[in-house]
Amino acid sequence: MQRALRVIRWLPASDWLARYTRADAAGDGLAAIIVTILLVPQGLAYALLAGMPPETGLYASMLPLIVYGLFGTSSSLSVGPAALTSLITASAAGALAHGDPQLFIQAAIGMGLLSGAVLIIMAVLRLGWLTNLLSHPVIIGFVSGCAILIASSQLKHLLGIPASGNNIVQLGRSLSAHLNQSHWLTVAISAIAIASLLIPKQLNGAFKRSRLPAWLAAFMGKSGPILAVLVTTVLAFSFDLDQQGLAIVGAIPSGLPHLSTPQMDWNHWKAVATPALLLALIGFVESISLAQALAARRRERISPNRELMGLGLANLASGLSGSFAVTGSFSRTTVSFEAGARTPMTSLLTGMGIALVALFFTGLFYALPLATLAAIIVVGIIPLIELGEIRQLWRYSRPDSIAMVVTLFGVLLINVQSGLLIGVGLSVVLFLWRTSQPHVAEVGLVPGTQHFRNIDRHDAIISDQILSIRVDESLYFGNARPLEDLLYDHAMGRPGVAHVVLMCSAINHLDASAVQSLESLNARLDAAGVQLHLSEVKGPVMDRLTKTHLLSTLSGQVFLSQYQAIEALGGATKTPDAV
Amino acid sequence: MQRALRVIRWLPASDWLARYTRADAAGDGLAAIIVTILLVPQGLAYALLAGMPPETGLYASMLPLIVYGLFGTSSSLSVGPAALTSLITASAAGALAHGDPQLFIQAAIGMGLLSGAVLIIMAVLRLGWLTNLLSHPVIIGFVSGCAILIASSQLKHLLGIPASGNNIVQLGRSLSAHLNQSHWLTVAISAIAIASLLIPKQLNGAFKRSRLPAWLAAFMGKSGPILAVLVTTVLAFSFDLDQQGLAIVGAIPSGLPHLSTPQMDWNHWKAVATPALLLALIGFVESISLAQALAARRRERISPNRELMGLGLANLASGLSGSFAVTGSFSRTTVSFEAGARTPMTSLLTGMGIALVALFFTGLFYALPLATLAAIIVVGIIPLIELGEIRQLWRYSRPDSIAMVVTLFGVLLINVQSGLLIGVGLSVVLFLWRTSQPHVAEVGLVPGTQHFRNIDRHDAIISDQILSIRVDESLYFGNARPLEDLLYDHAMGRPGVAHVVLMCSAINHLDASAVQSLESLNARLDAAGVQLHLSEVKGPVMDRLTKTHLLSTLSGQVFLSQYQAIEALGGATKTPDAV
Repeated sequence: MQRALRVIRWLPASDWLARYTRADAAGDGLAAIIVTILLVPQGLAYALLAGMPPETGLYASMLPLIVYGLFGTSSSLSVGPAALTSLITASAAGALAHGDPQLFIQAAIGMGLLSGAVLIIMAVLRLGWLTNLLSHPVIIGFVSGCAILIASSQLKHLLGIPASGNNIVQLGRSLSAHLNQSHWLTVAISAIAIASLLIPKQLNGAFKRSRLPAWLAAFMGKSGPILAVLVTTVLAFSFDLDQQGLAIVGAIPSGLPHLSTPQMDWNHWKAVATPALLLALIGFVESISLAQALAARRRERISPNRELMGLGLANLASGLSGSFAVTGSFSRTTVSFEAGARTPMTSLLTGMGIALVALFFTGLFYALPLATLAAIIVVGIIPLIELGEIRQLWRYSRPDSIAMVVTLFGVLLINVQSGLLIGVGLSVVLFLWRTSQPHVAEVGLVPGTQHFRNIDRHDAIISDQILSIRVDESLYFGNARPLEDLLYDHAMGRPGVAHVVLMCSAINHLDASAVQSLESLNARLDAAGVQLHLSEVKGPVMDRLTKTHLLSTLSGQVFLSQYQAIEALGGATKTPDAV
Repeated sequence: MQRALRVIRWLPASDWLARYTRADAAGDGLAAIIVTILLVPQGLAYALLAGMPPETGLYASMLPLIVYGLFGTSSSLSVGPAALTSLITASAAGALAHGDPQLFIQAAIGMGLLSGAVLIIMAVLRLGWLTNLLSHPVIIGFVSGCAILIASSQLKHLLGIPASGNNIVQLGRSLSAHLNQSHWLTVAISAIAIASLLIPKQLNGAFKRSRLPAWLAAFMGKSGPILAVLVTTVLAFSFDLDQQGLAIVGAIPSGLPHLSTPQMDWNHWKAVATPALLLALIGFVESISLAQALAARRRERISPNRELMGLGLANLASGLSGSFAVTGSFSRTTVSFEAGARTPMTSLLTGMGIALVALFFTGLFYALPLATLAAIIVVGIIPLIELGEIRQLWRYSRPDSIAMVVTLFGVLLINVQSGLLIGVGLSVVLFLWRTSQPHVAEVGLVPGTQHFRNIDRHDAIISDQILSIRVDESLYFGNARPLEDLLYDHAMGRPGVAHVVLMCSAINHLDASAVQSLESLNARLDAAGVQLHLSEVKGPVMDRLTKTHLLSTLSGQVFLSQYQAIEALGGATKTPDAV
């Protein structure tokens, strides 16, 4: 009984199902129909990008959506195949498979499955904060690099030539070697597809200003993929263009997926572990940012841990359906939101809609040109290339822009996973570098008061024998040793000094390395005949210091206030200039 | 001419040579003689530990010491073979060589050479702060783990049985399999060696209290290794104990090393890169801590970058001499200091002393039992096992003690390098976790003043419509997103709120991720009909914010003080209880 209750608590669907209304059903139903129509060409396109058979694009849009509808918390997030996760899948599975097509498919499925497991573990252990490791500049650099790679990788389909590569150098070399073999019929179809994609986008403003209902205006603005699919498929079918060398999707096996797990040995599972972790982190960051942005527009709240669970189960469902990793999709989510999706029922209904397509309508996509799918990917991905951000970031912060540029070039020149890992590592190291130089000020007494201020900024008096120093940051392993040296050198640079008073008013936390450095500073100063004192130590910090040896070995005393310290040690008499 | 001047500036020896006195020569000469006598058995022992031929222990104590004397800055640091670096060498070279003895030696030499290059690069790029990545708990865990591993690895020599392994499990299994083959003559020699090592240690206090000169008392206290070598070598030689199965050092090739570089292909160089980096970091941390502790006792200052250069060149010299990585040795440095070493001339003279030994006296060590060398290592290393620190650390800080225990077990159960890397990674992640939850307080107006204080700690009045929040930490990628959610949830949890004022008095720095999160918070609050305001932004932070879009998109205003903000937005009227 208790167990059953717990399961229900984990099923966020129970919340909204209990108060589901007819108005909800109308909004959700319309949104589901529109998203289904959009999702079919997108699913096929992202399967192409992931290097997987076309039907897996439909499988990834079926069970995962139903599972997310039951376990997710966002009312309009559209989970399913997406560009970034498909690219990571293609890159990592390609690196593992070394040209073995069966192994490629198994590895892609295994990655999706494992990334689902990672997300579920993160949900159970409440590790959502791990995504903070991905700083904004690293994400911008990563997404821009991936977008350039994706666009480049689709050029072969747009031009009708063979090409391959895991980074921009390999791709560029491969493309330029075959450029003179471009297939002009394919190029023409690509041009028609791109025009069909761009025209509704251009008219977006006009649709919004027109008298159309909001949902229809939003749909019309996003209808490019459907228009492109319609026009080019009809052309290809009517004139049998595949006979003239146009690559088409061909026969898609109809029916629902069979649930199974990938057939891989232990070494292959180990090899997909890192990409699965990246898929999980990137997928979650993409999903949660979208979900939060939408929730704000309805004053709702998103629970990151429940989202982790929802997305994790959706990925597990995708892997079991024999398909690749999924995440929240930006374009479909916007359409769904504007079409009036009110509850996760939209996601449930969309999944069922795709199941209907897979059962009865796959034949309609037989003559769909691959060039059209490539055009859908390229037109969708190009706005994600935010190179303008580099200049902006360069003006704001050098370390941040370095992290971004390194991630971007890592993705472009090495590969997707290495680029991200290098970027994350670098941003952590740059952060540690910045905090390794905390702000430190020598303070003096403001005459006529009991206040101590930075002597560089205020008229304050000091003493020949006493050096009063305030540190404006918590101390941890990253800055403890440099600070120890800085304080020691400061004291040694002032020959008459017999006392150093460390004013701790801004120190919120001291880790074990900082305690060790204070002990070492105390010993070094003591050996040089200088006493170390502390003042204005915060309550919680003092409580923890009593558990260490520092207080018993301290050569000086702990004072409640800096003023008491100066009074007890002889008083301040000189202006700094006189020293 | 200018270039020559620059070289001389890089040669710290020019400083002290210019004012070298007869008294300096006396102190340095005596210290050099004593350290040379200590260094010969230690060099042979650490060569044994590193898995290298005995003569390489002498080579590592020759040119590197002369180079350090010329380029180092510490007056009494004794650079040369040491326990930790020898263990890392053995472990990493063993993993690479897969039982090929020639490759093992080349890899060990290559690692020393490369770690020297790494240190020199760090000196040139001023990257000494990278050693801050090694937090105190990680170092304690690492050193304790290494000490346990080293002691266990020497048991085979003490018992006269074969055994091998890179971690405690492999070693334990291998030792227990051969335990019943223990060679009792070897065990007896080991017992004699251990007794000879411990007796002078026990008498250390008595020597110090006696009328002996300080240098002699210090030498007597540390004379254990010499006594052990003397007693056991004489025993082994007199009774031809090697004929009865006692393992001895045997013939050591006499003469000076030939300078050369290791013969390895590109893949092997790549494989030794990570261990070389670890050797550089660990060696530098060990050296610099020792040098700083000594400098304090003479009110001297150490330049970390010059130390990096000195230690780097010493390692380069060791590699070119065909030997393994070196660093500052704790035991020899203490002896050198107490024997009155005054300048780096001590190091120069010691290097020459070892050269004399290598030229003329290697024959004296023919009958030296390996068991004696193992006993020297074990007795020297056991005090470094600081398991008591775990309990102390557990009381002081859970995350710190977790980092320590994980490093310890990583070293013991996997291997030396993985243990350290896992420990460093974990301590960074734990730090990011801690800072991902900055201290945030809702503040109210202290009646009758213009001051704002935490409403949980002070009697302060607030407003129904205004939420005033102070963040007590700089914002960066690690805490930006959680803070965004926290502030948003705070505002949503208070239905009547129309304004959120973020009091920025404690924010010293905002990175690009933090700006992004503030923009996103602004947009989310705006979508929910709440305005975001900033107050008390520090000058440097404000200067940089003007370079972003935040100020132009901010739904509210930027106020100079929190008081002005509250006045402008309608004033504070209620006590928090009434809300």
